[in-house]
Amino acid sequence: MAAVSTDTCGPAELSVRERVPPLLTDLYQFTMAYAYWRTGRHREPAVFELFFRDNPFGGGFSVFAGLHDCQLFLRSFRFTDRVSDMEEAGFTAYSAVSHQGAICDVEFLRSVLPPATDPAFFQFLRGLDCSGVTLRSVPEGTVVFARVPLMEVAGPLAVVQLLETSLLCLVNFASLVCSNAARFRLAAGPRRKLLEMGLRRAQGPDGGLTASRYSYIGGFDLTSNVQAGFLYGIPVAGTMAHSYVTSFTSLEEVWPQTLAVAGGNPDPVDVISLTKGWLTRVCELLSAAPGKIREGELAAFLSYAIAYPENFLPVIDSYSVACSGLLNFCAVALVLCELGYQPVGVRLDSGDLCRQSVDVRRVFRLCSEHFSVAAFHSLVIVGTNNISEQSMMELNKKENEIDTVGVGTHLVTCTKQPSLGCVYKVTSLIQLY
Amino acid sequence: MAAVSTDTCGPAELSVRERVPPLLTDLYQFTMAYAYWRTGRHREPAVFELFFRDNPFGGGFSVFAGLHDCQLFLRSFRFTDRVSDMEEAGFTAYSAVSHQGAICDVEFLRSVLPPATDPAFFQFLRGLDCSGVTLRSVPEGTVVFARVPLMEVAGPLAVVQLLETSLLCLVNFASLVCSNAARFRLAAGPRRKLLEMGLRRAQGPDGGLTASRYSYIGGFDLTSNVQAGFLYGIPVAGTMAHSYVTSFTSLEEVWPQTLAVAGGNPDPVDVISLTKGWLTRVCELLSAAPGKIREGELAAFLSYAIAYPENFLPVIDSYSVACSGLLNFCAVALVLCELGYQPVGVRLDSGDLCRQSVDVRRVFRLCSEHFSVAAFHSLVIVGTNNISEQSMMELNKKENEIDTVGVGTHLVTCTKQPSLGCVYKVTSLIQLY
Repeated sequence: MAAVSTDTCGPAELSVRERVPPLLTDLYQFTMAYAYWRTGRHREPAVFELFFRDNPFGGGFSVFAGLHDCQLFLRSFRFTDRVSDMEEAGFTAYSAVSHQGAICDVEFLRSVLPPATDPAFFQFLRGLDCSGVTLRSVPEGTVVFARVPLMEVAGPLAVVQLLETSLLCLVNFASLVCSNAARFRLAAGPRRKLLEMGLRRAQGPDGGLTASRYSYIGGFDLTSNVQAGFLYGIPVAGTMAHSYVTSFTSLEEVWPQTLAVAGGNPDPVDVISLTKGWLTRVCELLSAAPGKIREGELAAFLSYAIAYPENFLPVIDSYSVACSGLLNFCAVALVLCELGYQPVGVRLDSGDLCRQSVDVRRVFRLCSEHFSVAAFHSLVIVGTNNISEQSMMELNKKENEIDTVGVGTHLVTCTKQPSLGCVYKVTSLIQLY
Repeated sequence: MAAVSTDTCGPAELSVRERVPPLLTDLYQFTMAYAYWRTGRHREPAVFELFFRDNPFGGGFSVFAGLHDCQLFLRSFRFTDRVSDMEEAGFTAYSAVSHQGAICDVEFLRSVLPPATDPAFFQFLRGLDCSGVTLRSVPEGTVVFARVPLMEVAGPLAVVQLLETSLLCLVNFASLVCSNAARFRLAAGPRRKLLEMGLRRAQGPDGGLTASRYSYIGGFDLTSNVQAGFLYGIPVAGTMAHSYVTSFTSLEEVWPQTLAVAGGNPDPVDVISLTKGWLTRVCELLSAAPGKIREGELAAFLSYAIAYPENFLPVIDSYSVACSGLLNFCAVALVLCELGYQPVGVRLDSGDLCRQSVDVRRVFRLCSEHFSVAAFHSLVIVGTNNISEQSMMELNKKENEIDTVGVGTHLVTCTKQPSLGCVYKVTSLIQLY
């Protein structure tokens, strides 16, 4: 274990101070702190260790995370006292005002602790901070094992007791989702890209941010969560959903209907007729029935390609991959290639991802050879259908051509075991008297 | 469905504005919004419905929650533009500053959207709000069923699309944990009190707050989470953990060693000798071996009782309930009764809660009769050992004397099914051209 450095924290990290005020803990920490204080034991030097008893997911390891948030929490640990304090501190919702109106932490505590509580205890709380607390810890991101201490927190008994719930809250889920992400990374292998996309299924807004952040530390490459990109610098990714595809019904909705040649003549080229021509050739090449092709899907793809000619990666299974989506993709992608752009690839979001990816890749190769378009060699196939660690492992056993995997629910909710269960146990108390 | 009222929000609710900025969404909402905008369809009137496909936990119902947060989110939906805007807005971490330094939402979006994005789109985003959006919804707390719309969001296509992930994030977990709490309430029956105590196992700090808030709406009576009490007015509860008990080794550590008679003579009474006397009588009554009693536990109980004579509810299974904890409790509680105080009860946190609660109640009745203390009739028994919905139902089948049940992990992580899976689907698009 290394002692933690005390480098100053960046502005993004202020958020932890607002989300983890000293009241974000279990009431019994305060009743116990009071009882220690009353007995005169509150300054007694105490050491607590934070560890878990079993590796999650039936596995052989975990990845420790949450340390940085713990450091920020300890540095900012201080009870707000009067309204003026809170105004000075920026008057934020979490630390300053409650359903009861503008009262401070200490006053709120006074209202929930038993009436017998000695008023001098609140004076004691007003002066508390973590200046007497030492945190020793394994580094964030370390592979760790059960029953080995992750953090050692030493300091005055009452203070170190008060920190328990908050530290557990900051380490438990962060380490759990980081370990889960690491297992997905192991299952996916080092080559495949992994995209975290679980915001909508996480435990509310901040649960989602926490999941995005620690999935990235655990080995994911990308997140769909824009705010996570903003706050933590995680690369963000995403293109289109089925709703976009199904909101189009005909090629008449495409606008503008032109696109300029890449880096060339700025005169716009009519792409509607170009696309129809390429679609006919693709259908001929693949012996496909033009009658099964959905024009609305073609319109959606074309419209998106005109908006983002260098970022064309549509979801191709809104109707049928083989009878409509793939053909429409190839037609629009061939238009882009003709005009000098590089299409990016496709997303599959339903059905047998492995089989479909193999079929899709075969068609890409066929188009590449038949129409002599080198760009079709480097098209990317993204798979995103309810992926679990198990289904990720099965991907490796089957023939498939999936380059990037998107994972949502099973990653951010840690379905297989949704809690880590770290505990915080006293290891030594030096009896002073 | 009723249209949502527009009453002003209280100060505590400001937190939602900070936690759910418009960037807390999936990137593809922006790429789609841009593609709609490019095609001139962004103002097209659109209606999306939010619903889930299957009731969670294999059950027949859910409880809808999260509406109030959605309203606050819609009211505050606005992109920050310049640094000055952010300073006016209070310069909070989530909406104002990122790992890249002080840049605004729109500038960050410009950095992650493809370079081909028309600069006029960012001008469009700068002017966006939800003034053109109508939210119709079932009331918060309504019992709801699968495939029935919970919310209907109508407005300009691009705006309503941008709201998708955030609304799902606000409804999915809130409704899931509220439904889970309602199932615990049904399993517990109407009489038993339910305490939520999952903060340490939730998805980080705000995941924990969300869980506390919506467990209360779903039918819990109390929370251990002090900040949830502060922000949402939920009654908070909690007394002592095993660490408090085990931190004592002998009666010499008890201080002060006196307690005044309730409402009577302020002269303090020596409670050490009183306690020893009562312990001897309790051991005799129950034919217990005094040699098995842990003096540290007795010291912890006594010390806590002196601090909180009207709130004495210790955890009695740090060593052995039958051979030590229960006897120590009775001795200290009898001291309190003798001095005119009403002890509250005991907490059981391990082993067979049902059997232990029956044994404990039997001893309470015996003491009550033998020592003629009426107070022992109304003692409360709290059970808190890894309770699940299943184990709660089993409680009802067995003979037991548990008055209050504390639930943590299984409640806040919704172990049986940790995600609800609400979706947000377009139901009508009025084609304008």
